[in-house]
Amino acid sequence: MANQQDHPLQLTNTLTRKKEKFIPLDPPHVGIYVCGPTVYSDVHLGNVRSFLTFDILFRWLTFLGYKVRYVRNITDVGHLVDDIDEGEDKIAKRARMERLEPMEIVQKYTNGFHDVMRLFNILPPSIEPTATGHLIEQIVMIERIIANGYAYVVNGSVYFDVPKYAETHAYGELSGRKIEDQLANTRGTEGQEEKRSPLDFALWKKAEKGHLMHWPSPWGEGFPGWHLECSVMSTKYLGLTFDIHGGGMDLKFPHHECEIAQSVAADGVAPVRYWMHGNMLTVEGRKMAKSEGNGFTPEELVTGNHKLLERGYSPMTVRFFMLQCHYASTLDFSNAALQAAEKGLQRIMAAYDILAKLKPTTEGTAFDVDALVNACNAAMNDDLNTPVMIAHLFDGVRAINGANDGNVALSEADIDQLRILFDDMLFTVMGLMSEAEAKSGDELSSGLMNVLLTLRADAKNRKDFAASDLIRDKLAELGVTVKDTKDGPVWERA
Amino acid sequence: MANQQDHPLQLTNTLTRKKEKFIPLDPPHVGIYVCGPTVYSDVHLGNVRSFLTFDILFRWLTFLGYKVRYVRNITDVGHLVDDIDEGEDKIAKRARMERLEPMEIVQKYTNGFHDVMRLFNILPPSIEPTATGHLIEQIVMIERIIANGYAYVVNGSVYFDVPKYAETHAYGELSGRKIEDQLANTRGTEGQEEKRSPLDFALWKKAEKGHLMHWPSPWGEGFPGWHLECSVMSTKYLGLTFDIHGGGMDLKFPHHECEIAQSVAADGVAPVRYWMHGNMLTVEGRKMAKSEGNGFTPEELVTGNHKLLERGYSPMTVRFFMLQCHYASTLDFSNAALQAAEKGLQRIMAAYDILAKLKPTTEGTAFDVDALVNACNAAMNDDLNTPVMIAHLFDGVRAINGANDGNVALSEADIDQLRILFDDMLFTVMGLMSEAEAKSGDELSSGLMNVLLTLRADAKNRKDFAASDLIRDKLAELGVTVKDTKDGPVWERA
Repeated sequence: MANQQDHPLQLTNTLTRKKEKFIPLDPPHVGIYVCGPTVYSDVHLGNVRSFLTFDILFRWLTFLGYKVRYVRNITDVGHLVDDIDEGEDKIAKRARMERLEPMEIVQKYTNGFHDVMRLFNILPPSIEPTATGHLIEQIVMIERIIANGYAYVVNGSVYFDVPKYAETHAYGELSGRKIEDQLANTRGTEGQEEKRSPLDFALWKKAEKGHLMHWPSPWGEGFPGWHLECSVMSTKYLGLTFDIHGGGMDLKFPHHECEIAQSVAADGVAPVRYWMHGNMLTVEGRKMAKSEGNGFTPEELVTGNHKLLERGYSPMTVRFFMLQCHYASTLDFSNAALQAAEKGLQRIMAAYDILAKLKPTTEGTAFDVDALVNACNAAMNDDLNTPVMIAHLFDGVRAINGANDGNVALSEADIDQLRILFDDMLFTVMGLMSEAEAKSGDELSSGLMNVLLTLRADAKNRKDFAASDLIRDKLAELGVTVKDTKDGPVWERA
Repeated sequence: MANQQDHPLQLTNTLTRKKEKFIPLDPPHVGIYVCGPTVYSDVHLGNVRSFLTFDILFRWLTFLGYKVRYVRNITDVGHLVDDIDEGEDKIAKRARMERLEPMEIVQKYTNGFHDVMRLFNILPPSIEPTATGHLIEQIVMIERIIANGYAYVVNGSVYFDVPKYAETHAYGELSGRKIEDQLANTRGTEGQEEKRSPLDFALWKKAEKGHLMHWPSPWGEGFPGWHLECSVMSTKYLGLTFDIHGGGMDLKFPHHECEIAQSVAADGVAPVRYWMHGNMLTVEGRKMAKSEGNGFTPEELVTGNHKLLERGYSPMTVRFFMLQCHYASTLDFSNAALQAAEKGLQRIMAAYDILAKLKPTTEGTAFDVDALVNACNAAMNDDLNTPVMIAHLFDGVRAINGANDGNVALSEADIDQLRILFDDMLFTVMGLMSEAEAKSGDELSSGLMNVLLTLRADAKNRKDFAASDLIRDKLAELGVTVKDTKDGPVWERA
């Protein structure tokens, strides 16, 4: 395991608000649960960043030699429009708008979510369970909570009794909210008359007439509350207490707070040892939101088809850009920052290509490859500090370029070790793909085009216009047009 | 709707063994249910053919203007190793072998299945429900069947009472098997002592100790029988009686026979109006089977990495090859047949490219485009007769090539109509992708390579070896090597 002795893996536990040494319950096994998307609309960039954060965690733990079971769910029922327990189910609402069966909506947006994950090379989880796939388990868990006295049934619905729970447990410990403050901040109980306290949340909701998604239960026809599915699916696949639970920071309260309360109320044990939360995205300093007009989609970012984007950025540029920021920090999108990331990625990939052909030399300044490897591993072990790890890789880039110019001495063993380091960090850990891998045909095409443009320039220089015209005509047949600009010829496809 | 008046859509109903006019229950809506894969191993080519058949059905009905809800399930529990009701659950068995949670197996092979579907451009269904996602519904259906007297509970399991059902219903009507013959052909009842009759099948099985997948039910901890999920999911999303149910011919008995019995026993109505079954694959005349050593996978077919394959064939070649055979006929794989299909596809795509640039002419023989369009539509309406439709398209290919050579007269309206026909039939209906679309970069690369090889040959002809060497060296820098063979230069990438 990479450098486990000197710099053991530490993760910031949002439950204790401290960086803690990571000690799995049952090594070499590690269990991770991450809250996945609610599939009633297209995935947004904030989701992509969050899933990328836990993709890096998954990759790094696997790289360290752990056997990771990574569970990321699909919420296909039960998330309510108002994020309180009244209002229409989000999926059912969209279904009526589109006059579709709710599960058609689910299918459409699940497919779209998977497409976006693939685009950014975010690995699929080990298990991707759905809320509708675990209804029996949810009903059974509610029965345990009721039996333990922490939930009550009203008119076909079941609510979690937060004040009762808070008498003996620290409700609010994850989000740091005191129950008195929560009560003071509560909006009126309009439409929530069934609840004993406005802090209570639904475990099971009675299906009103016309509600599209409902199932029989001991309390009548209804559907599960949103918070319940994650408690059920995480513990089913990872055990009553498991290693790591992740999600976006916006899920800390009430969702994750409720998950803790449900597990403790049902089974008497805290479900999670390490809570991890990713931070938010901003665009040019402002929160990204549809209402602000700055909420471009992953596709728009790649195609450049949005008024705030000067042009498109490749998925690997976006990935590298996100990893140049620590997951717990706010990440700000701007064209300048993306273009800088693009240049950085090109520079690092160019050095990787040089490395493949580099010959050993004893001339020039010495470079300590061991220290570089240790620094990269230590950065990753330091709460997944990808920006620091990348900064170290750039030290390696300078050494490679220096060796290529004859100014830095690298032995054969040094070069081999650098190759392994760059392979590991770029592809295995950061999950980047070389552009060749991402779109091999396109890269060859641009190489071939450069050869043809060189031949064309040569022909023009020796005034062999028959030859230069032949090249132009043959390219035209392929739908490629060449324009001569003051910066040289540029080409584009029809 | 394409030619509905003259040649209304007819489908072979395997229930009546007749070609019947297709009349949907609730036009313009059409409901289709197709048995999807059991995700405990890699998808095989027979599955691909079956899903392609129903992809064509989905595409053709949509093309005709119907609003199609296409449900194709994922079997993630309950299919037993012996295809009788004893033995270990297939998924649980693999899970133990690989020491994985069963749902990890499910996830792995579901992902693999989706990859193969994407490779062959088989459209995702409108809804892709899972067996584990419909356990409550299955329990509720079992309760209805018990209440109606067609099932009995023994020791925590529930069995369907086939002899009781057969007293008043035609058990065997789909497969054409008489119940007396079924009884005569039954193997011993070893391990099936609980059943009153060897013909009975499990609706719910008690989970023995150590069984990995089980849920609570009114009959104790257990799991659903394999046949039940399809009855539940088809009727949940399409109604108690729906239009079309499809699947491979091997599913006719017992699976589809049991589906009919379950629906009739639970709800008193036959579930399906049109049953459709796709035929099998053979390899050089022999049944494809792993034990025969001739069971190559979809990936092996594409890469050519199997001893029976002379080389790889592109997914679109395989798709076109399969569509040159009617779905109800046996399809035989051979290198010669695949290569013929590849040539045919190239010829048709070349004509499509010519069509894009074709100029109207009044010279030459007349050609009746209306008749061609009608013939293509009529072939598709004749039980999805893709081979006949393709044969008609080749009449169009001859006309296009003839017009290009100045021997066939095509007006501007003719050319427009041909373009629409070819667009419709090639891409919308047959779901082919142009190679450009399938891998745009690669196609451009091979075009550019041809230009460079032409320039190189020209340089050699005029004995300008500096120029021909320059091209060779520049290509070498891109990792491309050129070899001169007696058939001309060939190139390959490192």
